[in-house]
Amino acid sequence: MKPYIVQNENALYHECAFSCDNALFLRFNENEAYFLTDGRYVTEAKESIKNAEIIDAKRDLIKKARELIKKARLKQIIFDPLEFSVARFHALTKNLNINFTPQKNFSQIKRMIKTPEEIELLEKAALEGQKSFERFEKILKTWGVGKNEQQLHYKAEDCMRDEGKNELSFSPICAVNENAAKPHAMPCETKILQEGDLLLLDAGIKYRRYCSDRTRTIEVCDNAAFDNKNEQKFKDEFRQKIYDTVLKAQEAAINSIKIGVKLSDVDKAARDEIEKAGFGRYFIHSTGHGVGLDIHELPIVSPRSKDIVEEGMVFTVEPGIYLPNSFGVRTEDMIAVVNGKAKVLHADK
Amino acid sequence: MKPYIVQNENALYHECAFSCDNALFLRFNENEAYFLTDGRYVTEAKESIKNAEIIDAKRDLIKKARELIKKARLKQIIFDPLEFSVARFHALTKNLNINFTPQKNFSQIKRMIKTPEEIELLEKAALEGQKSFERFEKILKTWGVGKNEQQLHYKAEDCMRDEGKNELSFSPICAVNENAAKPHAMPCETKILQEGDLLLLDAGIKYRRYCSDRTRTIEVCDNAAFDNKNEQKFKDEFRQKIYDTVLKAQEAAINSIKIGVKLSDVDKAARDEIEKAGFGRYFIHSTGHGVGLDIHELPIVSPRSKDIVEEGMVFTVEPGIYLPNSFGVRTEDMIAVVNGKAKVLHADK
Repeated sequence: MKPYIVQNENALYHECAFSCDNALFLRFNENEAYFLTDGRYVTEAKESIKNAEIIDAKRDLIKKARELIKKARLKQIIFDPLEFSVARFHALTKNLNINFTPQKNFSQIKRMIKTPEEIELLEKAALEGQKSFERFEKILKTWGVGKNEQQLHYKAEDCMRDEGKNELSFSPICAVNENAAKPHAMPCETKILQEGDLLLLDAGIKYRRYCSDRTRTIEVCDNAAFDNKNEQKFKDEFRQKIYDTVLKAQEAAINSIKIGVKLSDVDKAARDEIEKAGFGRYFIHSTGHGVGLDIHELPIVSPRSKDIVEEGMVFTVEPGIYLPNSFGVRTEDMIAVVNGKAKVLHADK
Repeated sequence: MKPYIVQNENALYHECAFSCDNALFLRFNENEAYFLTDGRYVTEAKESIKNAEIIDAKRDLIKKARELIKKARLKQIIFDPLEFSVARFHALTKNLNINFTPQKNFSQIKRMIKTPEEIELLEKAALEGQKSFERFEKILKTWGVGKNEQQLHYKAEDCMRDEGKNELSFSPICAVNENAAKPHAMPCETKILQEGDLLLLDAGIKYRRYCSDRTRTIEVCDNAAFDNKNEQKFKDEFRQKIYDTVLKAQEAAINSIKIGVKLSDVDKAARDEIEKAGFGRYFIHSTGHGVGLDIHELPIVSPRSKDIVEEGMVFTVEPGIYLPNSFGVRTEDMIAVVNGKAKVLHADK
């Protein structure tokens, strides 16, 4: 292995199962690694980290990192040019005669294949996320009609948080009718939920730092259920057709996942179904993205993806159709590649 | 003025009263400025921005920025090296024969002196923040005792958010007794609030994107009131002494604020009071920081600050005393420099 330096919190956590907002991790070889932080975090770091020496670098982590790098007489050290600002990189490297080798997404590439333990955590995250959808479903039925999108969004967030027990993996998207046609809709105060409306909820939580991510689209009625994606009923035939097309696209993509298949072909499996139904131009984003410590990580499931399916990958499958000023539908689940094929990480009823 | 480029969301907003998560703003001279974004945001940008040309740069904002810079035949352009990653800066600048001049905190320096309109927004933010403290106060009295820190923290956040009407300017700090001795305490599940406990709440919201920031330390009892910092009563004499010392330090700092005074001397005014009382080594952070679109911005009120007080500055005054494993006290208000002296932006009863 080549020596490297990381600073991003999730990159730190992946290296040593601990992180804080002011730290650097340097690994020079199998036996030599350092976790640099300041006095606020040293005690906790020492309690948690087993695979690196903890150093209290006081006010100046960069200075300490330079000293360690010089002392070790390194010739080369890898860094992620997306992680370091121009100013910090300059402070770290100036007048050091060492080859700082840029490697984009260095940590995310290391994290692309999950261990069985990580998949277990992601599965737990997915299940907790699913429970949060159920909490929102119950409240929606008694309370939802007549509320505006902003209130719905807040309540969705509240249900995901479960009184502070869960952290969010991102701020939920909770969009009604034509707002669901915007893939990144902002909640709106003047949009009031009515019986029979279409509601799209895209939300996730963190379980021991691992993220969940899930989307359901439903029609608001007494029987509305987020956990019933295969049986969703829409009164409007056209909405039903769009919904069924998205579901079919998701199924096709999930069924196409096998070790060795190109991720661009997984994307194509979903895209082909939507194109076949005549809505290709309304599927305006990638089919999926990796999930782990970051909510968006590698691999990307898109027409331009160069990666192939490997055992241990975890990513979303989330095709959608967005009809501007009308409505949008998206269905999203997380899958893990286990025993060579896709295992959906949260099962519908 | 010299040409410049910014990308940070608050920097963008300050330039043109609009921002989104994928944009660049370039100003070449008084009459020539560009807002580059992608298709998702172009419509909204066109509706909002009056002082720049909106360009849909599709997938590649950096490519478009390079074209504009080349076409304008600029010799020099300012950027903030803290704002751009090594990778993005490289993509922006490679093979362009132009002097990209690093200027740290470029936008924050521009924003250090607030306009009267900005001070009005910050005052409204402070007042909304104050109301949020009152909401929490009411709930605390009927519900708080017996709850753990994590539950208290969540409820504090809930009160600040006011059912989704407010955004948070940061995740509140809600700490009991010895946890209040850690300036950045994480909420703890096993710490249960009892009658007579000391409670520190540091929290803020955003009003039209402008941040509030406030801290109160109280004793939990029937008369507990966040809005009564001058009349706080602690049964324990030592706690009262520490509290009174912090309050005196805050007053001394606020009274020292006049145009032309060094900010290091404002810090000293607070620090001297605490040292005089014998607790100097337990005041372990700066006296304050600027507040605006960012929750932490310039100027810094610390022993090392080089800035002097100017009309239109807005910053916090927040001395504290932290006795490890025992308890901590901090009192924080925002002040604006108006008519040459400090105006506290939220008044206590």
